[in-house]
Amino acid sequence: MIDQIIIPKAGKSQILKAFKVESEKNIAEYSVRVKVAFSGINFADIIMRLGLYQDAPPFPFVPGYEFSGEVIEVGSKVDRHKVGDMVMGGTKFGGYSSEIILPENQVVPIGHLSLEEAASLPVSFLTAYLVFFEEARVRNGDKILIDCATGALGQLSFQMLNTGGGSDLTIVGLTSSETKKEIIESYGAKAMTHSEFINSSEKDFDIILNSQGGASIKEHYKRLRPTGKLVCIGASSIFEGGKRSWIKVIKTVLEFPKFNIINLMNDNKGVMGLNVLRLFEGPEYLMSLLEKVDMFDLKPAVDKVFDASKASEAHQYIEEKKARGKVLLKWN
Amino acid sequence: MIDQIIIPKAGKSQILKAFKVESEKNIAEYSVRVKVAFSGINFADIIMRLGLYQDAPPFPFVPGYEFSGEVIEVGSKVDRHKVGDMVMGGTKFGGYSSEIILPENQVVPIGHLSLEEAASLPVSFLTAYLVFFEEARVRNGDKILIDCATGALGQLSFQMLNTGGGSDLTIVGLTSSETKKEIIESYGAKAMTHSEFINSSEKDFDIILNSQGGASIKEHYKRLRPTGKLVCIGASSIFEGGKRSWIKVIKTVLEFPKFNIINLMNDNKGVMGLNVLRLFEGPEYLMSLLEKVDMFDLKPAVDKVFDASKASEAHQYIEEKKARGKVLLKWN
Repeated sequence: MIDQIIIPKAGKSQILKAFKVESEKNIAEYSVRVKVAFSGINFADIIMRLGLYQDAPPFPFVPGYEFSGEVIEVGSKVDRHKVGDMVMGGTKFGGYSSEIILPENQVVPIGHLSLEEAASLPVSFLTAYLVFFEEARVRNGDKILIDCATGALGQLSFQMLNTGGGSDLTIVGLTSSETKKEIIESYGAKAMTHSEFINSSEKDFDIILNSQGGASIKEHYKRLRPTGKLVCIGASSIFEGGKRSWIKVIKTVLEFPKFNIINLMNDNKGVMGLNVLRLFEGPEYLMSLLEKVDMFDLKPAVDKVFDASKASEAHQYIEEKKARGKVLLKWN
Repeated sequence: MIDQIIIPKAGKSQILKAFKVESEKNIAEYSVRVKVAFSGINFADIIMRLGLYQDAPPFPFVPGYEFSGEVIEVGSKVDRHKVGDMVMGGTKFGGYSSEIILPENQVVPIGHLSLEEAASLPVSFLTAYLVFFEEARVRNGDKILIDCATGALGQLSFQMLNTGGGSDLTIVGLTSSETKKEIIESYGAKAMTHSEFINSSEKDFDIILNSQGGASIKEHYKRLRPTGKLVCIGASSIFEGGKRSWIKVIKTVLEFPKFNIINLMNDNKGVMGLNVLRLFEGPEYLMSLLEKVDMFDLKPAVDKVFDASKASEAHQYIEEKKARGKVLLKWN
């Protein structure tokens, strides 16, 4: 039997439920069976638990996009991995599980990372890589804004930019609370709260990573320099102030702006979007990016590990915007 | 007395009028006086002659953004240029003139270019540079679409990409007519007519330069690969088929799409705009880019030179989409 956490239907964090299912007997010739050590929790998991994520499968389902663990069985034609290898990987749903079977090209070795760090890496790494190195194409001298600077993605972004993003970067990081500023400063970046930023004259950004969505998008767009690029990846302002309400959800969605091409031309600016989870449709591409981990000197920020049986508490912790890095589920 | 071409009011090409004005007696200490040899004509000049360009000054005015010629006087504090220097430059309006006085930082030496080539370069070079090297940031292996491939901008883009854009580029160029395909092929690119392209399965572009505007934008957007960028610079489809009608103008403007950020996120794509003429507000920046001409091996495509007194014919020639490169006015 294997353990899983399922979302039986839309609801608050308490709705998450532990579940036991039979383990699959056989695995395909190009697949591997991984005994999961840790599963990463993403913001999207929470959005879909609330029933707000358009790409989610129908309820009930097992959420989860990333994990780390040990290969315990390999298919007859697998040559990249062997039993005993420590790996991390990405999966389109199903990550909150003590055992996962998936194609060998969806897992990669964890290298020098710990199993906790490895489970924290895939989604943040792929997002940051796609935002800065594929979409916006960071280069020497860029001025960059990161609006989710103290979470797992923000901290990994600093590490990637500092160790592989080019020279002479100027980076400003935003956080919801004064007490988290030290995290941003520890990466050599300038720290501001969201409200300090809105009231400041900071401008002339080459690249802005916007994860708040909603009304913040127009605010950030104004701060781009000509030829600057705003990359939008989420809607975290739904949880502004650590509390969600339906009014905030509706407000955020309604405040997502539309950009008229004629205005973009007159402003000499660009807007881009990223939803890395959509790219899990073609895992070969993402996994080829994950192999670029070695380009950087990374130490993913792990904030807190919850026993998988406490998944509800883990979700609640993230919703309350307490996290200073990745929140993980641990399997025994 | 100096000669100028003015647009007295909105109208057809015949409305353009030759005019004589007194030459300015004195020039400012940081300015230079240039005896103009050639003035470049841009698509925007025609749009503003039609009264459709929101940034145009009130009628009557002298259009023109680029020119080449000889420095015939320098202000007392000018040290970059001396009398007798051959230069090219950019000016926000006033370019259709046999003499131009402007700050020394708005002109640069023509180097190895002929005066015809030099007058053809500024606007196309700055546009192509900003599109490919600043906004989209071309790099090795990119697949690129250029939808205005046989005009001055398109041809200069090929030259810049081929000689400074990186290795292993795949470039597709579009043209309105079968007979112009050879121009595209001469740069080693794949040539297609606009309609062949729309009916083809060509896709997976990293960068698309869209100058047609209107409905073509959505068509091109579909052909981007994930993380790809569509850069919009104009609305040339107003003149599709070589004829303009008010219905086509209105249709083009209405068909300019708005992009919802949520859709950009789901598609993992970006849209950008460029209006280089807006950046003439800060000429220092543009001129610093113009000095990058030496990064490339360039030979601007000059299609046809009209005597300045035949400016109406020159405009008509462009409107009929006959041009295979830059169209110039010549001053005596």
